[in-house]
Amino acid sequence: MSVTIETIREAQERISPYILRTPCLRLNRLDPSLGCQVYVKAECMQITGAFKLRGALNKLLSLPPERLSNGAVAASSGNHGRAVAYGAKLLGTTALIVMPRTAPAVKIEGIRSLGAEVVLCDVADRFRVAERICSERNAAMIPPFNDEEVMAGQGTAGLELAEQCPDLDMVVVPVSGGGLLGGVSTAVKALSPHTKIYGAEPAALPRYSRSLAAGRPITVERRATVADALASDTPGELCFPQVRDHADGVVPVDDPYLLQGMKLMLLEGKVLAEPSSCIGVGAVFQGRIPVSPESKVCFLLSGGNVGLEQLEILK
Amino acid sequence: MSVTIETIREAQERISPYILRTPCLRLNRLDPSLGCQVYVKAECMQITGAFKLRGALNKLLSLPPERLSNGAVAASSGNHGRAVAYGAKLLGTTALIVMPRTAPAVKIEGIRSLGAEVVLCDVADRFRVAERICSERNAAMIPPFNDEEVMAGQGTAGLELAEQCPDLDMVVVPVSGGGLLGGVSTAVKALSPHTKIYGAEPAALPRYSRSLAAGRPITVERRATVADALASDTPGELCFPQVRDHADGVVPVDDPYLLQGMKLMLLEGKVLAEPSSCIGVGAVFQGRIPVSPESKVCFLLSGGNVGLEQLEILK
Repeated sequence: MSVTIETIREAQERISPYILRTPCLRLNRLDPSLGCQVYVKAECMQITGAFKLRGALNKLLSLPPERLSNGAVAASSGNHGRAVAYGAKLLGTTALIVMPRTAPAVKIEGIRSLGAEVVLCDVADRFRVAERICSERNAAMIPPFNDEEVMAGQGTAGLELAEQCPDLDMVVVPVSGGGLLGGVSTAVKALSPHTKIYGAEPAALPRYSRSLAAGRPITVERRATVADALASDTPGELCFPQVRDHADGVVPVDDPYLLQGMKLMLLEGKVLAEPSSCIGVGAVFQGRIPVSPESKVCFLLSGGNVGLEQLEILK
Repeated sequence: MSVTIETIREAQERISPYILRTPCLRLNRLDPSLGCQVYVKAECMQITGAFKLRGALNKLLSLPPERLSNGAVAASSGNHGRAVAYGAKLLGTTALIVMPRTAPAVKIEGIRSLGAEVVLCDVADRFRVAERICSERNAAMIPPFNDEEVMAGQGTAGLELAEQCPDLDMVVVPVSGGGLLGGVSTAVKALSPHTKIYGAEPAALPRYSRSLAAGRPITVERRATVADALASDTPGELCFPQVRDHADGVVPVDDPYLLQGMKLMLLEGKVLAEPSSCIGVGAVFQGRIPVSPESKVCFLLSGGNVGLEQLEILK
């Protein structure tokens, strides 16, 4: 089994009672700065503040009831952890989120406030700890991206987009492990084959640019980036073929362009999106994706979980 | 002649090639905080960053061509000045904006960058200076609110809203001189008589609360408020009867509630709106407007012109 337009449609049917159909906004005021007709799919306005809820809920809702009742486990300090915690509570089961000891207190509290149990450990141990607890409790592991139900869930953002704005020339999607790009490119290409789909990833972590060039998943050296939600060092092995077969390319973007994108989105677009979300806009600023004034380009804003203090980086 | 649904429709026909039909967003995530079903009409996403462009353009486009060619004059350091400058440039004429010497350099530059001439004077003299220049040049004065074409232009925001979301229970509109509330209440009541329309004004400047109670326009003492775009000390004499006849009331809101509203709009709603814009949300926080979980309430976000440094006030 792989991710197809059919499994994405099934995901949509499963999760649509619980998620928001986020708006696709035409942000005309950004056209002069970006040199194209600008649209955004505002997943920053999604419940829990990011697209991650789509995949987490599709996975949880695909579990056999007896499995779901043993609870869900995830290793994530960010948007995926929030999504699993929220989804588990919604469906009446428990969640345990393994977080690095170094995670900010506000993120730990955010996940606890959704009713989840939090286990802290060294950052390098978090997946091992999550696996151990999962097997002890016979609970369900909810992977952040490398999973077909998770990827199909993320693909529902693309399905909505193709329905909301059927004549897009291009969609640009932030990339980490590739769950979102894998799902969205599969959905959009099935419904609108002429639409180009690009991924944008931090230049500090060019795992997809290198892997696509090599024709196989490659692990890159861990380096710092302001795109804290795009921290994967390797493509998901299930995500890689979806991206390879459906996306038109993945481009690396340097942090300053991404921040320029975030500032434009906030001050001109009036939309608050987290740094990682704005990497697609950064790709255009950096000249990594060719656009033209007549082309309709949609930037998928993947999340909006950013605090006031983080806006300092834009000054 | 007064402002009617017909003059508002004529305004819409006149200005629609030049303005944005701003989105009406359903912001479900704000429902728990505000106790109702939350919608926003995002005029913060309008060209020039505020609804003011609607009224200014309707006025400019209503002028006889020979009058328009003598140029436009306005006294405003804020959104109205920007709108007149932008509109004049768009229509191929000149604009002169009279601004107080104390206006921030960034605002002066913003208006100059739209091609307008700027005249600086003492704040108390600005209307007199504008009148004098206007008569010397036989130019057209574009008033910020107390004008039927301006009010009809602002009313187009209500016309759009009634088309975009016909089953609203309530609309809440920021109030200063009353041009926006006068226009919007006239439009919405004509199309959807059961929809309640409330104005929200700074408690420091309760010119409408007092005037409506007295049955005539009353000038209040000038006092400071963080709602810098709602600084009028008296209702426009043409606006007052429109508001009296079509709105269901105007409530005073204290600054801390307005800031609480702005913070909610940004961090939960992911929409950047200027402080004055969020006074309607503040009115609900302060308990000044009764809402219920089943009611559909739309907050008109009047503008989004706020700099990063101004976000400090939210901390």
